[in-house]
Amino acid sequence: MKNIYIIGVGLIGGSLALDVKSKYPNVKVFGIDNNETHLEDAIALNVIDAKATYNDLQHADMVILSIPVDAAVRELPKVLDVISDTTLVIDVGSTKKPVCEAVEHHSRRRNFLATHPIAGTEFSGPKAAINDLYKHKTNIICEVEKTTFKLQEKALQLFSDLGMRIRYMNPEAHDKHIAYVSHLSHISSFMLGKTVIEKEKNERDIFDMAGSGFASTVRLAKSSPDMWTPIFKQNKTNVIETLEEYIINLTHFKDMMKSDDFETIYNEMKNTNHIKDILEGIA
Amino acid sequence: MKNIYIIGVGLIGGSLALDVKSKYPNVKVFGIDNNETHLEDAIALNVIDAKATYNDLQHADMVILSIPVDAAVRELPKVLDVISDTTLVIDVGSTKKPVCEAVEHHSRRRNFLATHPIAGTEFSGPKAAINDLYKHKTNIICEVEKTTFKLQEKALQLFSDLGMRIRYMNPEAHDKHIAYVSHLSHISSFMLGKTVIEKEKNERDIFDMAGSGFASTVRLAKSSPDMWTPIFKQNKTNVIETLEEYIINLTHFKDMMKSDDFETIYNEMKNTNHIKDILEGIA
Repeated sequence: MKNIYIIGVGLIGGSLALDVKSKYPNVKVFGIDNNETHLEDAIALNVIDAKATYNDLQHADMVILSIPVDAAVRELPKVLDVISDTTLVIDVGSTKKPVCEAVEHHSRRRNFLATHPIAGTEFSGPKAAINDLYKHKTNIICEVEKTTFKLQEKALQLFSDLGMRIRYMNPEAHDKHIAYVSHLSHISSFMLGKTVIEKEKNERDIFDMAGSGFASTVRLAKSSPDMWTPIFKQNKTNVIETLEEYIINLTHFKDMMKSDDFETIYNEMKNTNHIKDILEGIA
Repeated sequence: MKNIYIIGVGLIGGSLALDVKSKYPNVKVFGIDNNETHLEDAIALNVIDAKATYNDLQHADMVILSIPVDAAVRELPKVLDVISDTTLVIDVGSTKKPVCEAVEHHSRRRNFLATHPIAGTEFSGPKAAINDLYKHKTNIICEVEKTTFKLQEKALQLFSDLGMRIRYMNPEAHDKHIAYVSHLSHISSFMLGKTVIEKEKNERDIFDMAGSGFASTVRLAKSSPDMWTPIFKQNKTNVIETLEEYIINLTHFKDMMKSDDFETIYNEMKNTNHIKDILEGIA
């Protein structure tokens, strides 16, 4: 591999660029972004080597598409249109069904691999890019059988060099489950932040009372709306289902409190405590 | 100060004991606990110097009451009954109105100081005790004027030595605001954990898909039901109010999704992003 093109040099693409530069010192990393400031920041921070345009993609060994999921669905066919026959294109978005459908009948479908590396922080932009973001993280690959075998191998080598473990899943299952273990968390966090800000807007210094527990539960409310609005839109049906179940559980908890049924409340919390075992190894 | 008695040698009392032992090497730290294993663990871990009983409290310079809030309301009057005239008794529970009311007319009310150090982790028991848990944290003191001036000074010296900053507040305001910035976070976390566990119980390996964002939002669901059930019970009215507002906001979010109003969703998230500024300095 001689060169790699990162479309979208934010947290996700930028962190990937940093890892590529550190693992493969001879590979040249190009950045493409519609935000000129991000490109300049990425060059200044040595996240990418140089900027490029779609016209250059015919020379690409590998293209990483790391842009909001609505843009990915729109841009991926254009990227496939201009690459060479041996270029691998990988997308890394948080929804997989729409992007797979967008190129289902594209003549270069076999040059494309749909992935979702479960990695990130609540920050965004090239300044948020960090080394080793992907180390020991899970990467979910969808419709692997639709990608040329040689290009699959190329992608797996990269993921292995980045320290990731691989799971294969179909796009429908991915989008359904990720709604529970990722998308719902973001909404619960945003709405928790909203509830507290609304209530306490005239008493700002009350936030002195907030501790690390509050900080942890609202951390995701710092996330970028530019990234998350398209995710909720693309995964609408699944996300609404998780939200409905969450609201039912919260309402049930409230009703138990109203009827002083603290024994059931105790038991519910006790049962949920085994989330400990589930979380082991994630954080 | 020659000796200090910690009633309840768990995370909170144990961490306080560790700091006292490190800041005041000449002070002897005694532990009282109805869990004999906790007492033995606390001695073995050098969290306390020795165990004691209520009969010893007549010799105490200072007593820290760090037990679940329902037990605190029940035990505090008994403690005040047996201490000397110069003993300072401090409680550190997460609700303040019930404990203040429990000793409102006690003849030794002036020996008591109601506090809430905003510090903790999701773990519990003496093995969870850590040094410097209280450093740079806020301690909320309620009804300071009801405590003898000399004993106020003694308490403030301790808190200062532990590195805490002090805020004064009345018990009603404390309980109302803490419901928003602490108690609601715990319920949102427990119910998020419950929703995901229920949905995914037959697909345990789906949790491979969970990342650090999910871990952060459900961290508090590891908390002890023994500690939290009494808190929700004592702060029932305030907590129900926060839950109702939270449910309204979540339902509104769901309705906006159903009606494809993603512009408003974007704006809601954008507005909530300024939680960043609020959180600065907490975590």
